[in-house]
Amino acid sequence: MSLTESSAADIAKTASFASRHLATLSNAARNDALTALHRALLDNQDSILAANARDVETASRAAKNGNLNQSILKRLDLSRPGKYADMLQGILNVRDLDDPVGKVTLKTLLDDGLVLERVSCPIGVLLIIFEARPEVIANIAALSIKSGNAAILKGGKESTESFVAISEVISEAISNTQVPRSSIQLVKTRDVVSSLLAQDSLIDLAIPRGSNDLVRYVKDNTKIPVLGHADGLCCAYLHFDANPDIAVKVIVDSKTDYPAACNALETLLVHEDALKTAFPRVAEALLSRGVSLRCDMPSKAALVESLPASQADLLLDATDSDYDTEFLDLTLAVKTISSTHSPDSAAEVAIEHINIHSSKHTNIVITGSKEIAERFMNSVDSAGVFWNASTRFADGMRYGFGTEVGISTNKIHTRGPVGLDGLTIYKYLIRGNGHGAGDYFEGEGGKKWKHEKLSL
Amino acid sequence: MSLTESSAADIAKTASFASRHLATLSNAARNDALTALHRALLDNQDSILAANARDVETASRAAKNGNLNQSILKRLDLSRPGKYADMLQGILNVRDLDDPVGKVTLKTLLDDGLVLERVSCPIGVLLIIFEARPEVIANIAALSIKSGNAAILKGGKESTESFVAISEVISEAISNTQVPRSSIQLVKTRDVVSSLLAQDSLIDLAIPRGSNDLVRYVKDNTKIPVLGHADGLCCAYLHFDANPDIAVKVIVDSKTDYPAACNALETLLVHEDALKTAFPRVAEALLSRGVSLRCDMPSKAALVESLPASQADLLLDATDSDYDTEFLDLTLAVKTISSTHSPDSAAEVAIEHINIHSSKHTNIVITGSKEIAERFMNSVDSAGVFWNASTRFADGMRYGFGTEVGISTNKIHTRGPVGLDGLTIYKYLIRGNGHGAGDYFEGEGGKKWKHEKLSL
Repeated sequence: MSLTESSAADIAKTASFASRHLATLSNAARNDALTALHRALLDNQDSILAANARDVETASRAAKNGNLNQSILKRLDLSRPGKYADMLQGILNVRDLDDPVGKVTLKTLLDDGLVLERVSCPIGVLLIIFEARPEVIANIAALSIKSGNAAILKGGKESTESFVAISEVISEAISNTQVPRSSIQLVKTRDVVSSLLAQDSLIDLAIPRGSNDLVRYVKDNTKIPVLGHADGLCCAYLHFDANPDIAVKVIVDSKTDYPAACNALETLLVHEDALKTAFPRVAEALLSRGVSLRCDMPSKAALVESLPASQADLLLDATDSDYDTEFLDLTLAVKTISSTHSPDSAAEVAIEHINIHSSKHTNIVITGSKEIAERFMNSVDSAGVFWNASTRFADGMRYGFGTEVGISTNKIHTRGPVGLDGLTIYKYLIRGNGHGAGDYFEGEGGKKWKHEKLSL
Repeated sequence: MSLTESSAADIAKTASFASRHLATLSNAARNDALTALHRALLDNQDSILAANARDVETASRAAKNGNLNQSILKRLDLSRPGKYADMLQGILNVRDLDDPVGKVTLKTLLDDGLVLERVSCPIGVLLIIFEARPEVIANIAALSIKSGNAAILKGGKESTESFVAISEVISEAISNTQVPRSSIQLVKTRDVVSSLLAQDSLIDLAIPRGSNDLVRYVKDNTKIPVLGHADGLCCAYLHFDANPDIAVKVIVDSKTDYPAACNALETLLVHEDALKTAFPRVAEALLSRGVSLRCDMPSKAALVESLPASQADLLLDATDSDYDTEFLDLTLAVKTISSTHSPDSAAEVAIEHINIHSSKHTNIVITGSKEIAERFMNSVDSAGVFWNASTRFADGMRYGFGTEVGISTNKIHTRGPVGLDGLTIYKYLIRGNGHGAGDYFEGEGGKKWKHEKLSL
């Protein structure tokens, strides 16, 4: 075993041990740790912001030399107005959420004196790997402690100074509470990550937060279950009967509110009968906000006819691969959906396109028809399916979950924005009085099951 | 791409397509398919049993030559009294369970006219790989259809004839219903399995049912999430205050009711103060039922003192590896837990042993103390934790879930016996009226979230 491997095994073992103690703490004890965490981050704001300023300075130089993306620089900066306060408030918000642990979700009388309960409990050990955003450390630490999980955190290299400063404050703060200090461990070197990804017997869940490449790297290099999304290819289907005001509002917000987000719109499917009704107004609004439209032939033809030449000249031709591309930018692929058989058959074509090409993150329909909307919501296979509402609503805070751990496009465990519930599992408890299972059988002398649902 | 790979891709694509249609069907339509399935298996009982008899004959020859385990032969035989009737009844039981699809589990008013719902839905495509038991085909087909999932099934080679016969009846039966015929696909050749395990973009969940080796093979060879358990190393902790009658009843049932089952007891931890009270009676009862006891020194010494020589002579010495062994046979490892500091500290030692050595399947405590029991149930990390009740209760039928898909020792998604709920996930639906997310922000002019919980 190399030094890195043995270090990864030690980290994972310590975390596993801490997780078992943490799992037995009361909500009050976990909340006390969050209060201490909040206090300490408030008290140490100046030194943390000073450390962050050093990261920002290094990153600014890299950005000037073209070695770093401007958006990373922006995400890195904790001194932006309101950001530190939001981070602090986030900890209190998590603290004040309902306890996700110890919820009894099923209770059955199996037989006299033999009661089955299903009770929520922490998952165990989380491995969270994230990129630049330094406030994620506080956020994730709060969510982990509140849900009774131990967490191993690895941040991006651009935020090293901020990360070290925040992590020291966190360790110090929780060491004065009942939460074991090693419940939150911070890994500083990159080379330990691949060894940690090999600890699948001790680490229960990996959560990569960052670029598609990071998520793919994690998914491809571990047997630990991975929670997250590699892609956010979201689609909208504009039905022929859509109210143009609603269409403009929803599509412009979906595309332009934050184009780099995973829940931003990337593909617009337009019913052919909407090409000359709602669509030109939508296109005009998008073009006037600087969105490049990559159109197929019918949609381009319709716009060339209805838009002024100054705008029509901006239109681009779509290629097939555009419908499989997450642009993360002010670019939108447009595809026309023909309705050969009936106006409604187009909805089926749109649904099929989405089920094949979208990343099952968030997809929306804009229509005046409740029937079409319900069919769309029933048939589209994705974490979020919305009717006449922006894709950008797919977010834990907006859903009312408090802070979110991330957004999952997994088909098991937890899907969509992941709040505290996504960090819990359950166990089955039976309380008996000397019951053996062999006494229950059909026929003479066999005991019978009661299987009576008890109120929770 | 080889022929096998293209065939696996075709099977997975067809299943994915079928799953999307299946997901939109009503409970009544899915139930109609189960009724048809039941009817067809009843009508074709003779030909299916004839096919099964051919499998049994081949297997009997192999068993005689020492090339097949007797327990496989036993599991293979569908003509054993009640087995076929149980299989048929199982289909009706699944049909009559509550619909697991379309359950609204969260409803929130985000803002006026903007409502969020979380609704249960099928996972999509299941790949189920199982060994000899032919009745599993009917069982899994019923569970898949009821939960709205498409399933690809691969059975063991010993049950090929039974499997082909049942599969033809199933395909024929559902082809006359609204459930797409390719919702249940049956794979006959073994070489296609590894190619199917590579279809992680189309197959959503793999469920291996059978030996530890099978489960490990599947886990090691796919990126598809795997639901199941490789091991069933279950432990019991006998506290010093245990009622001897309860101890005998629970431990004998746990060990001897069905030793080859994953929920059979493998390790008994005995508080040192129980060595001369409850333990000798437990040991006597086990020995008289032919159980080999592999004892550590203190437990052996206690038994040598209290048991007649004829029984004491049967005792074996435990090695360290016995505490990590799933015997699946009439063998039990016994370990003494000393209580150096206080009687209660032994419970902590037992809990730590279990958290390290058990397979997190089912672990039990036998004690008269509610406090010790609750601490044990709170601290032991496993799918099932029971107080004064046999490990053998860990079973979907016994829990009242109807038929089970298997037992999961995963830490995410679903844990313990998996019923229909384990085959569903959910999606978030939003119904709006032209809402954009960019309108919601702190400060002047920003809309405010309502986040009002609505009744379900």
